[in-house]
Amino acid sequence: MDEATGAQLIAESLKAQKVEYMFGIVGVPVIEVAMAAQAAGIKYVGMRNEQAVEACRLYSKFSARPSSLEAIPSVIEKAVRTSMYGRPGACYVDIAGDMVNTVREVCFSCRVVSCCPPPPVSLADHGAITEAISVLKAAKRPLVIIGKGAACGRAEIALRQFVETSCLPFLPTPMGKGLLPDDHPNCVAAARSRALLQADVVLLLGARLNWILHFGLPPRFDPDVKVIQVDLCAEEMGNNVRPAVALLGDINAIVTQLLTCVRKDGWKYPSDTEWWNTLKDKIAANAKISKALALQSTLPMNYYTVFHHVSQLLPHDCIIVSEGANTMDIGRTMLNNYLPRHRLDAGTFGTMGVGLGFAIAAAAVEKSENKGQRVVCVEGDSAFGFSGMEVETMCRYNLPVVIIVVNNNGIYSGVDPETWKEMAKMGDLTSVAPPVTLLPEARYDEIMTAFGGRGFLVRTVEELRSALQLSLSDWEKPSLLNVLIDPSSDRKQQEFPWLTRSNL
Amino acid sequence: MDEATGAQLIAESLKAQKVEYMFGIVGVPVIEVAMAAQAAGIKYVGMRNEQAVEACRLYSKFSARPSSLEAIPSVIEKAVRTSMYGRPGACYVDIAGDMVNTVREVCFSCRVVSCCPPPPVSLADHGAITEAISVLKAAKRPLVIIGKGAACGRAEIALRQFVETSCLPFLPTPMGKGLLPDDHPNCVAAARSRALLQADVVLLLGARLNWILHFGLPPRFDPDVKVIQVDLCAEEMGNNVRPAVALLGDINAIVTQLLTCVRKDGWKYPSDTEWWNTLKDKIAANAKISKALALQSTLPMNYYTVFHHVSQLLPHDCIIVSEGANTMDIGRTMLNNYLPRHRLDAGTFGTMGVGLGFAIAAAAVEKSENKGQRVVCVEGDSAFGFSGMEVETMCRYNLPVVIIVVNNNGIYSGVDPETWKEMAKMGDLTSVAPPVTLLPEARYDEIMTAFGGRGFLVRTVEELRSALQLSLSDWEKPSLLNVLIDPSSDRKQQEFPWLTRSNL
Amino acid sequence: MDEATGAQLIAESLKAQKVEYMFGIVGVPVIEVAMAAQAAGIKYVGMRNEQAVEACRLYSKFSARPSSLEAIPSVIEKAVRTSMYGRPGACYVDIAGDMVNTVREVCFSCRVVSCCPPPPVSLADHGAITEAISVLKAAKRPLVIIGKGAACGRAEIALRQFVETSCLPFLPTPMGKGLLPDDHPNCVAAARSRALLQADVVLLLGARLNWILHFGLPPRFDPDVKVIQVDLCAEEMGNNVRPAVALLGDINAIVTQLLTCVRKDGWKYPSDTEWWNTLKDKIAANAKISKALALQSTLPMNYYTVFHHVSQLLPHDCIIVSEGANTMDIGRTMLNNYLPRHRLDAGTFGTMGVGLGFAIAAAAVEKSENKGQRVVCVEGDSAFGFSGMEVETMCRYNLPVVIIVVNNNGIYSGVDPETWKEMAKMGDLTSVAPPVTLLPEARYDEIMTAFGGRGFLVRTVEELRSALQLSLSDWEKPSLLNVLIDPSSDRKQQEFPWLTRSNL
Amino acid sequence: MDEATGAQLIAESLKAQKVEYMFGIVGVPVIEVAMAAQAAGIKYVGMRNEQAVEACRLYSKFSARPSSLEAIPSVIEKAVRTSMYGRPGACYVDIAGDMVNTVREVCFSCRVVSCCPPPPVSLADHGAITEAISVLKAAKRPLVIIGKGAACGRAEIALRQFVETSCLPFLPTPMGKGLLPDDHPNCVAAARSRALLQADVVLLLGARLNWILHFGLPPRFDPDVKVIQVDLCAEEMGNNVRPAVALLGDINAIVTQLLTCVRKDGWKYPSDTEWWNTLKDKIAANAKISKALALQSTLPMNYYTVFHHVSQLLPHDCIIVSEGANTMDIGRTMLNNYLPRHRLDAGTFGTMGVGLGFAIAAAAVEKSENKGQRVVCVEGDSAFGFSGMEVETMCRYNLPVVIIVVNNNGIYSGVDPETWKEMAKMGDLTSVAPPVTLLPEARYDEIMTAFGGRGFLVRTVEELRSALQLSLSDWEKPSLLNVLIDPSSDRKQQEFPWLTRSNL
Repeated sequence: MDEATGAQLIAESLKAQKVEYMFGIVGVPVIEVAMAAQAAGIKYVGMRNEQAVEACRLYSKFSARPSSLEAIPSVIEKAVRTSMYGRPGACYVDIAGDMVNTVREVCFSCRVVSCCPPPPVSLADHGAITEAISVLKAAKRPLVIIGKGAACGRAEIALRQFVETSCLPFLPTPMGKGLLPDDHPNCVAAARSRALLQADVVLLLGARLNWILHFGLPPRFDPDVKVIQVDLCAEEMGNNVRPAVALLGDINAIVTQLLTCVRKDGWKYPSDTEWWNTLKDKIAANAKISKALALQSTLPMNYYTVFHHVSQLLPHDCIIVSEGANTMDIGRTMLNNYLPRHRLDAGTFGTMGVGLGFAIAAAAVEKSENKGQRVVCVEGDSAFGFSGMEVETMCRYNLPVVIIVVNNNGIYSGVDPETWKEMAKMGDLTSVAPPVTLLPEARYDEIMTAFGGRGFLVRTVEELRSALQLSLSDWEKPSLLNVLIDPSSDRKQQEFPWLTRSNL
Repeated sequence: MDEATGAQLIAESLKAQKVEYMFGIVGVPVIEVAMAAQAAGIKYVGMRNEQAVEACRLYSKFSARPSSLEAIPSVIEKAVRTSMYGRPGACYVDIAGDMVNTVREVCFSCRVVSCCPPPPVSLADHGAITEAISVLKAAKRPLVIIGKGAACGRAEIALRQFVETSCLPFLPTPMGKGLLPDDHPNCVAAARSRALLQADVVLLLGARLNWILHFGLPPRFDPDVKVIQVDLCAEEMGNNVRPAVALLGDINAIVTQLLTCVRKDGWKYPSDTEWWNTLKDKIAANAKISKALALQSTLPMNYYTVFHHVSQLLPHDCIIVSEGANTMDIGRTMLNNYLPRHRLDAGTFGTMGVGLGFAIAAAAVEKSENKGQRVVCVEGDSAFGFSGMEVETMCRYNLPVVIIVVNNNGIYSGVDPETWKEMAKMGDLTSVAPPVTLLPEARYDEIMTAFGGRGFLVRTVEELRSALQLSLSDWEKPSLLNVLIDPSSDRKQQEFPWLTRSNL
Repeated sequence: MDEATGAQLIAESLKAQKVEYMFGIVGVPVIEVAMAAQAAGIKYVGMRNEQAVEACRLYSKFSARPSSLEAIPSVIEKAVRTSMYGRPGACYVDIAGDMVNTVREVCFSCRVVSCCPPPPVSLADHGAITEAISVLKAAKRPLVIIGKGAACGRAEIALRQFVETSCLPFLPTPMGKGLLPDDHPNCVAAARSRALLQADVVLLLGARLNWILHFGLPPRFDPDVKVIQVDLCAEEMGNNVRPAVALLGDINAIVTQLLTCVRKDGWKYPSDTEWWNTLKDKIAANAKISKALALQSTLPMNYYTVFHHVSQLLPHDCIIVSEGANTMDIGRTMLNNYLPRHRLDAGTFGTMGVGLGFAIAAAAVEKSENKGQRVVCVEGDSAFGFSGMEVETMCRYNLPVVIIVVNNNGIYSGVDPETWKEMAKMGDLTSVAPPVTLLPEARYDEIMTAFGGRGFLVRTVEELRSALQLSLSDWEKPSLLNVLIDPSSDRKQQEFPWLTRSNL
Repeated sequence: MDEATGAQLIAESLKAQKVEYMFGIVGVPVIEVAMAAQAAGIKYVGMRNEQAVEACRLYSKFSARPSSLEAIPSVIEKAVRTSMYGRPGACYVDIAGDMVNTVREVCFSCRVVSCCPPPPVSLADHGAITEAISVLKAAKRPLVIIGKGAACGRAEIALRQFVETSCLPFLPTPMGKGLLPDDHPNCVAAARSRALLQADVVLLLGARLNWILHFGLPPRFDPDVKVIQVDLCAEEMGNNVRPAVALLGDINAIVTQLLTCVRKDGWKYPSDTEWWNTLKDKIAANAKISKALALQSTLPMNYYTVFHHVSQLLPHDCIIVSEGANTMDIGRTMLNNYLPRHRLDAGTFGTMGVGLGFAIAAAAVEKSENKGQRVVCVEGDSAFGFSGMEVETMCRYNLPVVIIVVNNNGIYSGVDPETWKEMAKMGDLTSVAPPVTLLPEARYDEIMTAFGGRGFLVRTVEELRSALQLSLSDWEKPSLLNVLIDPSSDRKQQEFPWLTRSNL
């Protein structure tokens, strides 16, 4: 028998589940939990903002409130386990404040529950695999779509072998980027709209047919497209589109099953088809347009110019975090990923404000594992405002994140300083300024210098390249590049009006 | 293009999903939906009671409120599909009242979504199967537990072959009864407590380690028991007990995988082990005690006598519905099932009031499919009170359900008429009657005759046998046997006090 | 210091709040609470059905879960107090099961919280009162509407003086019936539709402008009607109709304020106005029609005949409980109330199944207070089905409730036995019977005799009168009159089609 | 008939309810609503952060989702009305995204609902007033507590007359500050603990007995204290303490009733009582201690020094916004308010992050009404971090807010730069830095200069006074004073350890 406070039990239970980091904002009685966590060897990162607690219960996969001190270890084990088993998701454990400082004699052997094992793995039914292969073989215009589920399932090795053995064209979703490198010859991301629209068979690997994939429906998809849906969640099967074949199970295991079949009979999709020609022509045409935009030398710069140069300088193994509207959309197409799970963005719900938190978490892990990978955070100026104060957190812990704020003075698009002054003369800005506008040329770089990091105001290609190179070479502290671009550099207002996402 | 009301769209969408029965209570505007359902060929069963609508949202696996008439077919498809895919569960679709009578031109092709296919099937990982087999082979005291998940997964054929090939002892949970017949030589249900307590390896097939299985923990289980957990729900794995092996996937498919392995190497668990001897001795001892109780000739009868004779007369293919406290518990052990999915009871939460509704649903299906199977509903007297008015529904539709009310004048246990009269003399019964007492010798049989069914007041073995034989021979209308038993016939008050569930 | 179990603390806390009755269904661990309540002198009434527990939290004014045994008394005090202060409403206290049997040393002085005092009273602002009086004086066609709030506020004495001093016509809402007797010369309920439609000033006393009052809007109200709204809930003011004057406070206090004003200057509304003539003419015309219907001698009887005779025989001080569709609607107009708070019906939401519970509660109170008042429960046959098993509860406790089931073989309207037989020949009744039909001539009276009460099958006026007289003379046990009426006796299908609520 | 989009209907409905300001963050489809609001003459303030939308439903007094375009005006009227009637509170209207751009022909007359009138007013019962006066007269140690309810009820004129006529001592709660000036001779705030502990009668005006008032219970209150509770919410009466007299109604009206009584009989509480002597002695003693702390000349400064000088320089009519832990607590006692409703702080729940939003709202109103009042925002450094990016909003709209960040390098208390450097040498700061620490001497002032406002780094009294004077003289833009104080300047660590709130 042994004495423990609630805070100690919480800390020990988390440690037993191999939790390594805790993020939070202390207050009474969270201080005691944070201190107990540090004492137990968990790293604690103090943040600057948090959202309403009770509310997250709504968005959690599992929530519980231990009814006694003794229940804490098993509730925490269940929360950690549930967050990883099946489709991953956040869990919420609500511990009554007065439990934290309660001291209780606890039977030593019951104090902790040992760490839960990795999730169990299941395979697809053999008959369904055979059917899927036969649908694939009959396809004229096949397409592999790689989703977040494939990344969570760590399917990259099998997947690369499958794509290279079968010679199929593939397209990653935002969170599926990097399982295969974005510059892989079979990647058709640069012809995304065309590929989606004309594919007759889609092998959908752990991706949901939600708005990001236009629900799998016309006018963005062929109404007769056959979908081979691969997912570990039975309830996901058939959402929005009825699959021709449903392969239920672990994505990595199923890709391996498919690979085995393809290898066995030596089938591959020919490289000289009309489909490949169509896709390659489109890729080339789009590349030309992007390049033309990227090489425009007028100032202020446009999005394409910025991303072109950033893309050239980023190390292939960096972790890219991104949020914003145009910044995230255009950046997604122009910034390549080469490694799996090296991209974090605002996700399905486009939640603004998550970027800096993601970057801090990634950088804290990187710092402690010391693998030599950089975290680069590409933010729209409005998105940066949601949690900009977290740069103090980065500076406090010496996390060498590179933040690139692509600053167009507004949400979607702002105005230049001259126009702003004219508007101010017209009357009260709350009445006359368009709701999308922010203060022109705001010095977000000085937020970084205020806390001892490096800040750069960037107006030209040269400034951009030099600031980024300097930032990447500094492993001691964070940097922020405040990149001023043309506030009218909205994709919708360009001379190539057809160059929006829907026609790319 | 074509015109349809909301009610018609609902009815057609349900029909398209192969829904055959609708149960409800009409009111404005449910009348229109019920009539449209009948017009579409769906059978409508009007009930007498229902529970708060909004509330069931809390207990539903999926709930939605279509935002337009056009969305109804796909929402209904998703609700039906979700109710069957993954772990089955109720779904809730809330349709705004004013939509029901709205007439809208609807594109003919969009009017319905075709019926969703059967759920996809997944297999367990081969390595995990091998490991499971090796754990099984090393077991000294193995036990197979057959749960509701095996019934839902329709695993009975593979399961029988597996049990008979491997020669393992098995135990069904309440809803797992009948996958193998209860009188199968390998069934150790009559030594349940002993089997659970001493097993060193448990093969858990689609059963949850909840209170019904004593959470899989001491003092009812060996603290070192190794569990091979088979489930189609990843999040269920490891609840309460960490499994030695987790086999994730379709139960039928996994049992088939296990069977293949066992067949391949010809392994079987020997029939002459100490374990089998222990179990068989215990079964014989318990049988003797039950028989002694069953053959007691004092009146009023006790539970064991009643169930002994009922058990002798019930056809092997009947569907047994049951609810109550002692009635359900003792009945569960004494009434055999011989076919899968032929038992419906109050389930995990012991929800009283579900029995008659279950019986009506089962009888309506039986009546229309005409397979010659009877529905027998075994109810405690208190349980019957929750929805007793539904006998009018049975009479109205001529559903030949046989209801057996095991009447002990109370909840858990009541008092005899003499005691009741004495209490009434002592003062206001709301002050002096124990909260568990109900009116002694209440004539529940007359509830049935009030609506034209057959009612029997039963006090003796002869009356019981004759009434039950008569009821089973009548295929035209329902019957109710009001079986008066000793109100003190509580297991806890018997001369064999150790004969409670915990020691059986 | 003293020892107490959780159950005892609950019971003592309720007793301290002067709770006299507890209603419930026992199960583990409610038994202990019920027994402790009886030991503390609270009467316990065991019921036969209950609705989902957790769900009622949604409909509660206050809900709480005490976090410790010590918190129980103050949480119960707060729940009882909140249920009565401000607008009355149900409260929900959820006590963890394992607290019930916990024994704890409790400081004697903290064990209970003394009974909360009656709700505080507030008055309307004097200026608003003056304005209200001046609006009333300027009215050509004034109308007083008496709502449930006036009944809860016990405003009957002041209200009668106000109506009789001011000589204004008044109209009660269903729950406002009886504050002044329904046969008061100023009552214009028999010209309800006309009164609502043509009033130019409405004095609304504790009534909500919901669907029961047609939201106070055209076409059922004059678009220019001026409403003087009297309510104790500020947030109710202005719902649906903007009041000309809002009088916030205790209804009894405000009516007294109005009375004082009216008395001071001696104003009264003249009795010879065109408005009074219109209303009186309409009352006479409607009375003639109702009487003609009531005196029809064809069999089966119609609603009006039944209610006409019931009305003649009911004692003026009886408590009328009612639920159903037509039964409740027509009964509301034809069964007079003469005393305040002597009517209980299905209320704003038309919740079916509440009637028998209301009747049991009223009869239990009446039995113990012995004031010589009868409880009469007027039920539609479908409504009776929701909780018909509660007649066992009435019989068990010898509660002399008189239940009148107005039986038209269905919901809204059923069919006669001949038609039913014809339908049965046409095929499976689940396919051919209209969803509104129930079993024709079901013997609900035998539900009563099954438990030892008196049952009557009633087809004629003579049978009705004799059965009702007999039932009213029996003070020892409950009775049920199963009154068979013409199943097509729907108001909508009569020869006077304009005699529906909307035109009355 | 007329055409309108949903966005226009929303804007017009808000304008009709006299809504003057809208705060938000645009995104699709909020842009259209913001633009329509500006077109309708509503000022739009674009913010930088917002909290989860759906979640606020939980904390709202009323929430609704209009089911059609036509319902928008009345739902908005109800939301605005409900937010002001009864106890004020936030309301939530959730409008489906696709409604915003829907164009519909709308009947012109139905387009808007006119502005709801001010809340109705009710008075306390005369008998209760008489009783309250008699309890007050019998008091030996009376105390008036002025709460937020008195501020919302705009009771200041009547209240000042009442206090000055009755000569009673008074104490404001945080949100009741300024109804009477904090330097009023009857104010006993500087002897708060003593006044609460020894009062025998408390006149509680619109204040809740929650944790801020120590629940009205021992050891902070006399167990026999008599409370005269004045509130407009019946359900608040009796929470935590049973009132001797409950006065329900509008606070201003009730104070006027009390004043009338007191004036009529000329009663006043004598100025030479032992109670007044006790209070005055305590006030003098506490003033001496505070002054001693305030005049300490060591550097870094302590809280008392900072607030002493700030207090001297702030104009009496300024609006003080405050949040933080020690900063808010100590500032509350040392920064006087002289006008009602001129203080906004983190309130009952201590919600961090609200300060800058409050300041922006107050400054926007002040700017447009041009009354010459300044908004001063006093923030702890941790509190500032929750929404520090909103300084961009202040700069964008030229709102001349003065922000004073009282910076102790942490939450509750941080460490000095030297200590921080030592810790950094000890290892990874996530492991070694106490969870309460933030980056020492962080330059929050540069956040302000980054957006064009004035920033000051303040270390001494001279710098503090000069920066504040300069800031207050600038009416064109915001300023931020980053006041570095002794990181160990926690009240708990001072040489006067008894000088905490609990003993003051």
